[in-house]
Amino acid sequence: MKSYKELTKEELKALEAKLQAEYEEAKRKGLQLDMSRGKPSVAQLDMAMDMFDVFTAKSLLKTQAGIDCRNYALLDGIPEAKKLLGDMIGVPAENVIVYGNSSLAIMYDAVARAMTHGVMGSVPWHKLDKVKFLCPVPGYDRHFTIMQYFGIEMIPVPMTESGPKMDMVEALVKEDAAIKGIWCVPKYSNPQGIVYSDETVRRFAALKPAAADFRIYWDNAYAVHGLYDDGGEDLLEILSECEKAGSPDLVYEFCSTSKVSFSGAGIAAVAASKNNIAEIKKALSVQTIGFDKINQLRHVWYFKDINGLMAHMKKHADLIRPKFEAVENVLERELAGLGIGSWRNPRGGYFISFDAMEGCAAEIVAKCKEAGVVLTNAGATFPYGKDPKDSNIRIAPTFPTPEELAMATDLFVLCVKLVSVGKLLAK
Amino acid sequence: MKSYKELTKEELKALEAKLQAEYEEAKRKGLQLDMSRGKPSVAQLDMAMDMFDVFTAKSLLKTQAGIDCRNYALLDGIPEAKKLLGDMIGVPAENVIVYGNSSLAIMYDAVARAMTHGVMGSVPWHKLDKVKFLCPVPGYDRHFTIMQYFGIEMIPVPMTESGPKMDMVEALVKEDAAIKGIWCVPKYSNPQGIVYSDETVRRFAALKPAAADFRIYWDNAYAVHGLYDDGGEDLLEILSECEKAGSPDLVYEFCSTSKVSFSGAGIAAVAASKNNIAEIKKALSVQTIGFDKINQLRHVWYFKDINGLMAHMKKHADLIRPKFEAVENVLERELAGLGIGSWRNPRGGYFISFDAMEGCAAEIVAKCKEAGVVLTNAGATFPYGKDPKDSNIRIAPTFPTPEELAMATDLFVLCVKLVSVGKLLAK
Repeated sequence: MKSYKELTKEELKALEAKLQAEYEEAKRKGLQLDMSRGKPSVAQLDMAMDMFDVFTAKSLLKTQAGIDCRNYALLDGIPEAKKLLGDMIGVPAENVIVYGNSSLAIMYDAVARAMTHGVMGSVPWHKLDKVKFLCPVPGYDRHFTIMQYFGIEMIPVPMTESGPKMDMVEALVKEDAAIKGIWCVPKYSNPQGIVYSDETVRRFAALKPAAADFRIYWDNAYAVHGLYDDGGEDLLEILSECEKAGSPDLVYEFCSTSKVSFSGAGIAAVAASKNNIAEIKKALSVQTIGFDKINQLRHVWYFKDINGLMAHMKKHADLIRPKFEAVENVLERELAGLGIGSWRNPRGGYFISFDAMEGCAAEIVAKCKEAGVVLTNAGATFPYGKDPKDSNIRIAPTFPTPEELAMATDLFVLCVKLVSVGKLLAK
Repeated sequence: MKSYKELTKEELKALEAKLQAEYEEAKRKGLQLDMSRGKPSVAQLDMAMDMFDVFTAKSLLKTQAGIDCRNYALLDGIPEAKKLLGDMIGVPAENVIVYGNSSLAIMYDAVARAMTHGVMGSVPWHKLDKVKFLCPVPGYDRHFTIMQYFGIEMIPVPMTESGPKMDMVEALVKEDAAIKGIWCVPKYSNPQGIVYSDETVRRFAALKPAAADFRIYWDNAYAVHGLYDDGGEDLLEILSECEKAGSPDLVYEFCSTSKVSFSGAGIAAVAASKNNIAEIKKALSVQTIGFDKINQLRHVWYFKDINGLMAHMKKHADLIRPKFEAVENVLERELAGLGIGSWRNPRGGYFISFDAMEGCAAEIVAKCKEAGVVLTNAGATFPYGKDPKDSNIRIAPTFPTPEELAMATDLFVLCVKLVSVGKLLAK
């Protein structure tokens, strides 16, 4: 197809009139579709419903070691759940604390604790003039919101095909002791779906930060969320890499079953070195007597082990893959070669990341909304909600049906074209 | 019975020899009993097991309004759970946020949030030279631990039969703007089982603190935990009293079903004014996408409404009452009139508070432990773990059986006698 950039002004004007007519037509359809958040679909949630049959009123809700999960005990989670979530991310159970239903809450907690109490004896961050975090961009908006809430300065680091730009990460953390962390979604990154390369993981493990209380905040949200079965996307396990590199305490890793069992009612965990775990447990003992061990046990009884969990995720993949492909097919068919947008076809995770022509993203999202298709706010994938190029748009294809996605994406590409033509005409 | 204080030195010596022999005999029994923590018994937990039959794999896990409890949504809890927990403490659902399984975690959160962000626009507490809380004593050790963790100074306020000494509370909060809160367990207080009188609640609502960010931390942990059926222990509802007094924002109230359904896996809530709730929700939106709504729904479906919940609590009372009475009977039979200890027979809650002669508590607890009966550490009911009189001992009778309790209390009174005689002889 001919690139829009090669069209004459007259051609563009004609095209704009045609697209505008199509858009008015589309608006009249009264669509009500939502591709804004990474929510599992009803069918996915239905797949785990048998979880509610693993217990009955007659069940003995005890761990293998005989602890009654109904009562107070086991601040760090039941051993079986530590094993299950540890296996999910390739970490020994002893390096895991299982919490309640939200890994976001664990991440928040890690930052909040550092604010008031520092990290392993460091100065509490609230006493420092300046605390900074590196934020690979585009990234996850909720990470950035935690930063803003605590007044932590965000330094964007560009993403590459193999992970964050490591030269920049290495140089920055080495120079600036005010940099206390970096946010990573290392597998099927949010929103691009990039898997960090082995080299990237090793360079992370080999970081020599100026700040002793620097930690890598490794949000392994999509550890088992591949869409395809043909492998080749293994993420190198970072805890053992850090240990090998002589910096065992460098990383906090987070994971959950929010997108495995139920997003409202899964179980979540942090994994870290022995010293980190000891410090977290000590703080945690002030905070709570323990998390919901019955839900932990329910998950263990239902999935049995990592093989059961992986088999479950394969069912998810079979359901979600056609949704991603529905979006990708429309993008390919309608936009390939036009020079007005690029995107990645991710091999896992929850998002498709689309880059429009500079200065177009906010307008595209607004036009979609006007016609009944809700996308994540433009800019949300950047610190402070501001995409300097106004280009990145995050598409979340998991919740709607493939048919709805095709309709929504039809509208999306229409809006991309319309806004792009306008932009080219305004030049 | 003759008071020990009236005995001659010779009589005391003879008694000591006799008690010492009994104690050596008791040690040989090899008891292994625990009266240290307020844990529900297995039989209590068994009573709620039908909760695991309210759902099956076929259930439609939606709220009445149609929200899917399995997915993300409803940061502040499902409306039905807000109503149930609101009814438990006499507060409208709109004033309630339902969290996960731990009210302690909500209280911790309230303090942590104030440390980093202040309260309704006040200066964050970490920026202040000094933050103080009033702590009615004896009180709940986990409240005090939160204070210590954040370096908040604790000012003990004596308890009376009708609640904290209000003259002192009123004078202190009026004078000192560094005082930002007071910890209250207003119904069946921990450990004494005192119910705050109507006048006490009204005086709380009428407080005029110097600090605008002062809040009453009203830990209504035992709102529905009466042991007797004859009434007369209603606690005045403080939110509406604060509103009447023109200070709607003065209080945060906390509650949970930890000692209603399952201590490891109940649901917990905060109740407060509209303004407080709005502030908490805003902060909470940074922290999590939401709590476990499936467990909230499970509780609602199981208890149905407050009447179902109260009927359940009557079954608890029938089971626990004989346990309290087993302890009280031994105390009465063995210690009445001896002048070496006093105690209250509470009408609800989870504890019996015992006051030994000054300087005896730690030794009594140690002697009990040596002979196989674990009690809460002496001093635990006071800030910094230090009971200035070394007198108060908290007995938790809910977990063991009545038979075990009778045995454990037999040993306890023996230790009380032995240590008291030693003390009198040393004078």
